[in-house]
Amino acid sequence: MEEPSKTRRIYLDYNATTPPHPVALKAAKKALELWGNPSSVHQTSTGAKALLWETRQFLARFIGCHPLEIIFTSGASEANNQALKGLFSMAGKKRRELIVSAIEHPSIKAVAKWLSERGFKVHTVPVSKSGFLDESFFEEVLSENTLLVSIMRAHNETGVFFPIEKLIKKAHTKGAIFHSDMVQSLGKEKFSVKEWGVDLASFSAHKVYGLKGCGALYCRKGVVLDNLIHGGGQERGRRAGTENLVSIASFGAVLEKGEELVEKSRELESLRDYLEKKVHSSLSGIKVVGEAAFRLPNTSCLCISGVEGESLLMNLDLKGFSVSVGSACSSGKITESSSLRAMGLTTEEARSSIRVSLGLGIEKKDIDLFVENLQAIVTRLRSL
Amino acid sequence: MEEPSKTRRIYLDYNATTPPHPVALKAAKKALELWGNPSSVHQTSTGAKALLWETRQFLARFIGCHPLEIIFTSGASEANNQALKGLFSMAGKKRRELIVSAIEHPSIKAVAKWLSERGFKVHTVPVSKSGFLDESFFEEVLSENTLLVSIMRAHNETGVFFPIEKLIKKAHTKGAIFHSDMVQSLGKEKFSVKEWGVDLASFSAHKVYGLKGCGALYCRKGVVLDNLIHGGGQERGRRAGTENLVSIASFGAVLEKGEELVEKSRELESLRDYLEKKVHSSLSGIKVVGEAAFRLPNTSCLCISGVEGESLLMNLDLKGFSVSVGSACSSGKITESSSLRAMGLTTEEARSSIRVSLGLGIEKKDIDLFVENLQAIVTRLRSL
Repeated sequence: MEEPSKTRRIYLDYNATTPPHPVALKAAKKALELWGNPSSVHQTSTGAKALLWETRQFLARFIGCHPLEIIFTSGASEANNQALKGLFSMAGKKRRELIVSAIEHPSIKAVAKWLSERGFKVHTVPVSKSGFLDESFFEEVLSENTLLVSIMRAHNETGVFFPIEKLIKKAHTKGAIFHSDMVQSLGKEKFSVKEWGVDLASFSAHKVYGLKGCGALYCRKGVVLDNLIHGGGQERGRRAGTENLVSIASFGAVLEKGEELVEKSRELESLRDYLEKKVHSSLSGIKVVGEAAFRLPNTSCLCISGVEGESLLMNLDLKGFSVSVGSACSSGKITESSSLRAMGLTTEEARSSIRVSLGLGIEKKDIDLFVENLQAIVTRLRSL
Repeated sequence: MEEPSKTRRIYLDYNATTPPHPVALKAAKKALELWGNPSSVHQTSTGAKALLWETRQFLARFIGCHPLEIIFTSGASEANNQALKGLFSMAGKKRRELIVSAIEHPSIKAVAKWLSERGFKVHTVPVSKSGFLDESFFEEVLSENTLLVSIMRAHNETGVFFPIEKLIKKAHTKGAIFHSDMVQSLGKEKFSVKEWGVDLASFSAHKVYGLKGCGALYCRKGVVLDNLIHGGGQERGRRAGTENLVSIASFGAVLEKGEELVEKSRELESLRDYLEKKVHSSLSGIKVVGEAAFRLPNTSCLCISGVEGESLLMNLDLKGFSVSVGSACSSGKITESSSLRAMGLTTEEARSSIRVSLGLGIEKKDIDLFVENLQAIVTRLRSL
């Protein structure tokens, strides 16, 4: 069986992070020379200022908002914290409730818990084993007391999309504000924040082939947030701290080609379907979590009965394949996926799942190699 | 009179930001290739993880603490917010007071205001016109109710050092925690956080020839802070968000040569003194703010009677010199320096002040050129 060489690993973990795109690298290297402080008045800062504005425009154009509705952050975790804490910090006496889904990113779940410890009521909308949000539960808990709904657009492990356009309309009928963690959606589907009507949305550069250290919060004009980071007047006084121009520039370079990125990401769907078909035909006891749902084109969450995802991950790693178990945000800890458990999968099912996420550069022969190796490893592990 | 060419500006604003050092650029470029998510388990993340740990060690060694006492942040504004909000978020019923100096960085002043609006008492220690902290006022307000003292080590505009080692001892006698914004001090003087006894200290990479987008909070083991950014388990659960490895690596590369940096920065003192002497001898009506105080070796805050700092800055800019008025953190706004006003300088004095801050690469001939141009511009402006 052909094995990938040691120098040519096959990376199948694009939902954890992406290799920087050549245009992102080029922009980053250019930005390294524009090291002036964008807040300075003198001409050393001119290039940096221009580049900052340019990226703001590229992102605004791509997601369909005004450039001044964008707040650059250090990443999506900060953007998520900024949205939730910033809004609840301004809460009055009436609206004191938050609605989230059961499978939000840790940065939403942790803030929801933090808010609940501070006297706010948090409703958690269940998600089914197949990945569907319990919309009737959502409607039940949504009320005139809801300050904010925070429901992601696409899940990082299963790839399942939530129908947020519909949920936003419902939330607005009760006067609630709607935030969405759109990190996994950006660059994989075309949307317009204005058309969808979302009020707040979080994005991350390093999930779309940009560098780490840059995220953004779309904040619809009219939505007033308390700062998470107080201080200087950067981002029109909404986020203090000298801007990380190198990462911001890399984000801009990718966003300038955003439409093209969406096209290329869509093309991954046939590769992903090919992968799932091939896994199904070469191994028994396989379930694809969320298979029947509308999903990200690049993501496959494979539940492989009779093997531990952790062992699988390590064995695949030794063969040169990078996949993941759960989300990557837990600093090296391998545990069962809390999202899959929340969806009602058993501990055993959750522990025997791996996430395969494809990205630009992955070819059919990579999938063939991966499935061949997967089959061999699973067969061996099952025989132990 | 010789003028700097258009392509060779003379940058004299190192306290606002520094050009990345060649070692920082080299490290950043190398880190661009280690794009794996440090939280991932597979080998794509191995290099990133190692680099993260390496920088943590370099910083720890340089400031004299354990690597695990360091929390990487997106910058010093975040670190300052993390320290203050993180501590006051855990405040009990007894200790509910904060002590700051009158001339802290905007990210401290703004958080102090924010805390005072939330029921905490804030004491602001006056600073004299010559830059000296009112230590008797400090002792008067320090009490068993003090939760935190946040006093910077060196001021970004005047360069004046506060005697924090002494203040820390006093604070500890009352059981208060001591935080210091040490951004301007790092790399310009040798210190040990353990020897000084400081409990929390903020640092920034881009003020010491690293890239923007990376700061750090030293948090003494035993000091418990609430998170500013909740979510994934990065930084041992104390700061969520995928690490900005490119900036972190650049910081590490500089810190590895930290001792050398301190030596080189110290050598700037004679250049700075030469500058001040030359300005004094070539222009009348000059005051150096904080001249008699123990100051950063690279900083000179010149109060030039009869001219507006803003006009001076612009005229110098047109001639190819970058200096600043006030701090650079106000996003292009030129106003009088609030720090100088707080020190008791009149509006007129504060408005006629510019900050000249030197850094690696500045030579005697640059100073000569600068003073020549300054003299000509001031003479012209005064004659208008």
